[in-house]
Amino acid sequence: MSAASPLLAELIGSLRCLPGVGGKTAQRMAFHLLERERERGSKLAEVMREAIQRIGHCRRCRTLSEDSVCAMCMSSNRDKQLLCVVESPADLTSIEQATGYRGQYFVLMGRLSPLDGLGPQELGMDLLIQRLAEGEIKEMILATNPTVEGEATAHYLGKLAQAAGVKASRLAHGVPLGGELEYIDRNTLAHAFGSRLLMD
Amino acid sequence: MSAASPLLAELIGSLRCLPGVGGKTAQRMAFHLLERERERGSKLAEVMREAIQRIGHCRRCRTLSEDSVCAMCMSSNRDKQLLCVVESPADLTSIEQATGYRGQYFVLMGRLSPLDGLGPQELGMDLLIQRLAEGEIKEMILATNPTVEGEATAHYLGKLAQAAGVKASRLAHGVPLGGELEYIDRNTLAHAFGSRLLMD
Repeated sequence: MSAASPLLAELIGSLRCLPGVGGKTAQRMAFHLLERERERGSKLAEVMREAIQRIGHCRRCRTLSEDSVCAMCMSSNRDKQLLCVVESPADLTSIEQATGYRGQYFVLMGRLSPLDGLGPQELGMDLLIQRLAEGEIKEMILATNPTVEGEATAHYLGKLAQAAGVKASRLAHGVPLGGELEYIDRNTLAHAFGSRLLMD
Repeated sequence: MSAASPLLAELIGSLRCLPGVGGKTAQRMAFHLLERERERGSKLAEVMREAIQRIGHCRRCRTLSEDSVCAMCMSSNRDKQLLCVVESPADLTSIEQATGYRGQYFVLMGRLSPLDGLGPQELGMDLLIQRLAEGEIKEMILATNPTVEGEATAHYLGKLAQAAGVKASRLAHGVPLGGELEYIDRNTLAHAFGSRLLMD
């Protein structure tokens, strides 16, 4: 095919920058766009160009936003005493969709990972310290991932909160709802067993 | 998230025009592009725009091509006495990659399907009849899919070949290489059994 249309070959190659898209899928996408979805494909190309050009990071919470301060930070409807710290905009979206949380967010855009060159500075900790120093925040909810690096990051954030005299909380660990004990990993089960709660 | 960035929400929505991409995948793609692949993403948007704008169909074989006659039809290295008829450019690519075929192609861009409004005219049969009338082609290889509609199309094409006095051949049916008889569907097995060949 590459012989018949260099431009088509280039489109197939470029589509592979999308996550989870290999050669076969990229080919299927390219044919689909050209044979059936030219209009929506043109629109997608235009939106993609514009989004990459215009979307940056919110000056206040570091999430992805085309405004210098995002709508969520600007909103007067959100509780300014609660700050939930997450690793990524995707985590923010998950919490927004799953919970009734109405406080504010701070997005690290990563987790402490010295081997990858991600230190406190890269994660905007100075901005966070400044936020805490403003004195408005009463509780900082640490919603980093329950991975080794996420836990280390939460530990570090906990120290920051302590230094600023702000209460810090962490998402509860335990057995997921709807799971079967038989299939839950040992560490989680041991943790859930140890942290068992009295029924009321 | 839609509240925080309308442009991001639009990008996620637009990505769903890609085949096999639902809401969750579109979200993952959008975050990936904005957080990690801005450069390749811009390039993709540009190539996509250009491909959709410039790629049309080859005047001679109807495959996708940015030139009015594709490189394969122009090539002097390909046997002009053989014409392989396929349903789509993807099928053409598969045959190019799998076989040593060095003849020419004709791409129907579909299959006879009256219910979908696809008749001989939509599939460029007049162009094909013209090709056969040129007298250069000696054999037409019918490589439409082994589906009901593909078989009906092959049958129709066979009649065209007959009318033009051109030999027509069809891909062989049988058990696929590497398959296990236990798992092969009944019709295929019955066909392969009936068409068994003497070993030499």
